[in-house]
Amino acid sequence: MFENKKSNDNEINQFNFRTDLATERRDLYKKANSVENEIDGIESTKEEIDENISVEKVKITNEQGEKAIGKPIGNYITIDVKKLKIAQEEEIQKASEVLSNELRNIISQHIAQQDEIIVLGLGNIYVTPDSLGPKVINEIDVTRHLLNYAPEYLEEGTRSVSAIAPGVLGTTGIETVEILKGIVENTHPKLVIVIDALASRSIERISSTVQISDTGIIPGGGVGNARAEISENTLGIPVIAIGIPTVVETAVLVNDSLDLFIEKLQKEAKSNDYLNKLKDEDNYEEIKEALIPQDYNLIVTPKEIDDLIENMKDIVARGINFAIN
Amino acid sequence: MFENKKSNDNEINQFNFRTDLATERRDLYKKANSVENEIDGIESTKEEIDENISVEKVKITNEQGEKAIGKPIGNYITIDVKKLKIAQEEEIQKASEVLSNELRNIISQHIAQQDEIIVLGLGNIYVTPDSLGPKVINEIDVTRHLLNYAPEYLEEGTRSVSAIAPGVLGTTGIETVEILKGIVENTHPKLVIVIDALASRSIERISSTVQISDTGIIPGGGVGNARAEISENTLGIPVIAIGIPTVVETAVLVNDSLDLFIEKLQKEAKSNDYLNKLKDEDNYEEIKEALIPQDYNLIVTPKEIDDLIENMKDIVARGINFAIN
Amino acid sequence: MFENKKSNDNEINQFNFRTDLATERRDLYKKANSVENEIDGIESTKEEIDENISVEKVKITNEQGEKAIGKPIGNYITIDVKKLKIAQEEEIQKASEVLSNELRNIISQHIAQQDEIIVLGLGNIYVTPDSLGPKVINEIDVTRHLLNYAPEYLEEGTRSVSAIAPGVLGTTGIETVEILKGIVENTHPKLVIVIDALASRSIERISSTVQISDTGIIPGGGVGNARAEISENTLGIPVIAIGIPTVVETAVLVNDSLDLFIEKLQKEAKSNDYLNKLKDEDNYEEIKEALIPQDYNLIVTPKEIDDLIENMKDIVARGINFAIN
Amino acid sequence: MFENKKSNDNEINQFNFRTDLATERRDLYKKANSVENEIDGIESTKEEIDENISVEKVKITNEQGEKAIGKPIGNYITIDVKKLKIAQEEEIQKASEVLSNELRNIISQHIAQQDEIIVLGLGNIYVTPDSLGPKVINEIDVTRHLLNYAPEYLEEGTRSVSAIAPGVLGTTGIETVEILKGIVENTHPKLVIVIDALASRSIERISSTVQISDTGIIPGGGVGNARAEISENTLGIPVIAIGIPTVVETAVLVNDSLDLFIEKLQKEAKSNDYLNKLKDEDNYEEIKEALIPQDYNLIVTPKEIDDLIENMKDIVARGINFAIN
Repeated sequence: MFENKKSNDNEINQFNFRTDLATERRDLYKKANSVENEIDGIESTKEEIDENISVEKVKITNEQGEKAIGKPIGNYITIDVKKLKIAQEEEIQKASEVLSNELRNIISQHIAQQDEIIVLGLGNIYVTPDSLGPKVINEIDVTRHLLNYAPEYLEEGTRSVSAIAPGVLGTTGIETVEILKGIVENTHPKLVIVIDALASRSIERISSTVQISDTGIIPGGGVGNARAEISENTLGIPVIAIGIPTVVETAVLVNDSLDLFIEKLQKEAKSNDYLNKLKDEDNYEEIKEALIPQDYNLIVTPKEIDDLIENMKDIVARGINFAIN
Repeated sequence: MFENKKSNDNEINQFNFRTDLATERRDLYKKANSVENEIDGIESTKEEIDENISVEKVKITNEQGEKAIGKPIGNYITIDVKKLKIAQEEEIQKASEVLSNELRNIISQHIAQQDEIIVLGLGNIYVTPDSLGPKVINEIDVTRHLLNYAPEYLEEGTRSVSAIAPGVLGTTGIETVEILKGIVENTHPKLVIVIDALASRSIERISSTVQISDTGIIPGGGVGNARAEISENTLGIPVIAIGIPTVVETAVLVNDSLDLFIEKLQKEAKSNDYLNKLKDEDNYEEIKEALIPQDYNLIVTPKEIDDLIENMKDIVARGINFAIN
Repeated sequence: MFENKKSNDNEINQFNFRTDLATERRDLYKKANSVENEIDGIESTKEEIDENISVEKVKITNEQGEKAIGKPIGNYITIDVKKLKIAQEEEIQKASEVLSNELRNIISQHIAQQDEIIVLGLGNIYVTPDSLGPKVINEIDVTRHLLNYAPEYLEEGTRSVSAIAPGVLGTTGIETVEILKGIVENTHPKLVIVIDALASRSIERISSTVQISDTGIIPGGGVGNARAEISENTLGIPVIAIGIPTVVETAVLVNDSLDLFIEKLQKEAKSNDYLNKLKDEDNYEEIKEALIPQDYNLIVTPKEIDDLIENMKDIVARGINFAIN
Repeated sequence: MFENKKSNDNEINQFNFRTDLATERRDLYKKANSVENEIDGIESTKEEIDENISVEKVKITNEQGEKAIGKPIGNYITIDVKKLKIAQEEEIQKASEVLSNELRNIISQHIAQQDEIIVLGLGNIYVTPDSLGPKVINEIDVTRHLLNYAPEYLEEGTRSVSAIAPGVLGTTGIETVEILKGIVENTHPKLVIVIDALASRSIERISSTVQISDTGIIPGGGVGNARAEISENTLGIPVIAIGIPTVVETAVLVNDSLDLFIEKLQKEAKSNDYLNKLKDEDNYEEIKEALIPQDYNLIVTPKEIDDLIENMKDIVARGINFAIN
């Protein structure tokens, strides 16, 4: 389940970001266009919660900002959790509270206190790096069936919550949005929260970063396929996406590592004009071409992915449960 | 996901069968009503395929048969596989071929060669005895997305197959039929195959028996809830159910064991009138009442359930794939 | 991994207890021998910690007590946790603290503050009802390798802890004690803590009761096999066993359910002399014989075993970590 | 569990191979030293079994060969299986037969027909990329306990086979060789087969290549630690290693990708002297230094690792079972 580049990339946005994180796109755009200050149509703030957790908010406010970084107008909140693979209970709880606060805030901008919510977990339970969505769904405190069949066991004013992990296109044969549309028509929720895997530029962010946005997503299976979009456009209700990078493409990894390598040569005065130029350019496409003849451009994930997914699952599930119940 | 007793049990059908297997119900009815020959409105045949595999077909042909055993008019095919927990590849393959033949036959009575099929796996992947449905879905050869996006990779005349394991009411908050209805409306299959867990009277049948029927099912969550039925009534297309017993209720186990115990006392001339009468009666309700004050009437499953599920998954998945592709 | 009946059952101990819990054996002995007060050589106390957790301590003080219930002289502490399958974090933490206190106390009776400990998890990770031991081992905070290779990262006075889950006889071909003996000879721990599955009379106790004892165990594979014993006799160092019932034999379940059933008939004045006598006797052997011709005497486990094991794993792992580090 | 470079790297062997595959080391040595033909002390042959499977045998025959590639005198057989992640049953069976033949051949050079064998699976069942060893062990047909307790069920002349997956240093606190030594002393096998994860230069080889060797291994935990070696030296019996690459270090990936990238620039006449020189050198150490300040030099694995491990497990388990039973 990997969000794809919008096809409406325009002349300003000449390069391919290869990341779904608004904050990385903003940085890449500024670097590529030598912009010093904030881009027109984009506002952002950054806050360090503690030594391991930071929150960055990027707000795209107009069409100019939208064009610059190829993301729709809306809110993009990135929570980074350092050293997640060795995180203890206390840090996981802290991170889930940060997520919960941001989520509660963004939900309240779209629906009322008791409006029905459905949580959608994208991904494949049988592929470890892609199993976060279904694992979170298993931990969501659903109430919809109890409100229908046994309301006496619930407190007055309990919000109706349902949750589903429908599987991926490759194992169902059905676009997720086709499944979801029917459910929305039959069960009438007011808002969708979708948990999705993202592409990131940075392997450090694998299963350690969460991006909350309110602009919907396009799952991986739906390349160039408008029908696959999961958004207010296709569903008629607001969609809040919780996206987590879980894999990285080899060419992205090599491209970024090459920059770090040249940077090191520069510091040691061992670089030269050619390399300096190489660093300023984006060599992704050429690296990709160099790798692909060898069938070498794999999608990779860190060895510790099992533990990362386990800890991130706790953060996201608690974050959602606390925000919506 | 346990199919429930039809509420239309009538005066003839006074006792509760506590089994979803038509063959067990037929036997119980004949015993309770001292019927020697076949019941009016019920036809059946039995075939031993080899020393471990047998197939029994029960056909309910009229309302009389329907009333007798509380199952709708239709076909009920039971495949028993002995010693499944230690079955080798060869026996699993054999059993899957038997299943496949029966399935192909029953499907051809309802739809044409290339008509679209959706396979539905009920159950909860995180509860071992209830995980068969989702595990089978993961092995179904789906083609629908390829027919839509890459038909050039498929042979001419490939049937469109999709598959979904939507989860259980307790973790989704949504009745399975509500999920399925939307999918059927959006994707237009001509037939549903549903994999479901059944109740059986016999612990020997746990994950060792498959019942194929063409009359739909009511999942466990929907007690007394007509909306929960998964059938041609609710979906508008035929539903073929593949049901597998995976658990047993303690009271059923004790009731049946008590009969075996008294039988043994009788053989040894150690029984008496009271016990003889006890054996002829159905003591399920009283045993249940005796157990419940202690919270003792659990649902149990054999220790080897992991291996049983694994082997049965192979039989059912291969059986379906071979029958429909 | 099921502890077996000692072969030295003597004339006093005529019946087979079919439980490894000292507290159940004591009750059975008292009932069978119509003993009103405490048995000679056996002392016991019971404490309710809160509404869900209780602790019972049985101490066998002399050979008379040993003969009565067929368990060696020593301490047997039973912790019962009610409603474990729906336990929340708080109750799991509470139960782990109770376990930890008892464990710390019993360990201190055998070794000094910093003496090396090895934790041994019996069972098979691939068989859900038998997977508790290996799952606990994965959570034990081991320090032995750090003390050897990187002591600078540990606090002064850290105890050396190692842990192993060697697998079961059926998958290794080697008696656990043969594996353990070599490790003890090569690594020189001063005490073994072994996590083991027990037989219990009560299905209510499945994965809800913990028995701590300091008298060693005999794993399931070693029927009538003295070499298989894991105890101070075979290893030369004290062995503390943490045993948890995880399965029940059908004949035991039926035998006990039959008693509950007759009890109910008695209350309703529907019993008779024969049944009253039946209840006073132990019908296990006859029930077993009645069931076995049908290959019906399975080992069963509750449907919720996945969740029970998960919660019990947390209690035992935390209990051990807190007691020994 | 990653085999480490022998510490006896000498002046000839100046660079670090960063691979445990003899065939990759031979190629690297030849390239670095501009050797055209075979290296003195090294013989090799290569055979294409079919379009997907090839076998390469490297034999180190004297100290000269040993020094050249830093591997002890002995046999190194590499089986490559292309497209393993999408392999069907037929190809898996074929690959397992190739492995089986090579294994049977190499075993027969060390022990007699019925001599006892112990199979050792290194790795951690809870870390997907490191779970191959334990998963293979679960499928080994062990006979030792049956030969001891129930020989009547076995054919005359059955070899005694045992198997163990002891876990990793980080979860046991004990070096694998310390565990194994005790078992060997107590059970007296004549040969060890050890399944181990290897380092490779090529991400294409992840879980797609098997190296059989008869010279023992050093598990990952034992860096610079002679005691950790699992070999005839430490155990007194021959050790046959079956090694499978399952992860790759980012710096290795980047180093090799950089070469491919420069090669592409060269072909397009876009390279320069500096880059050409860069390509001829080994930049691993500098790349590593460039990456490490960012904590960027992770160990990565392909996204499809679950399926790769599953298929490779079948190949290795069947290969061993067929070779030794």
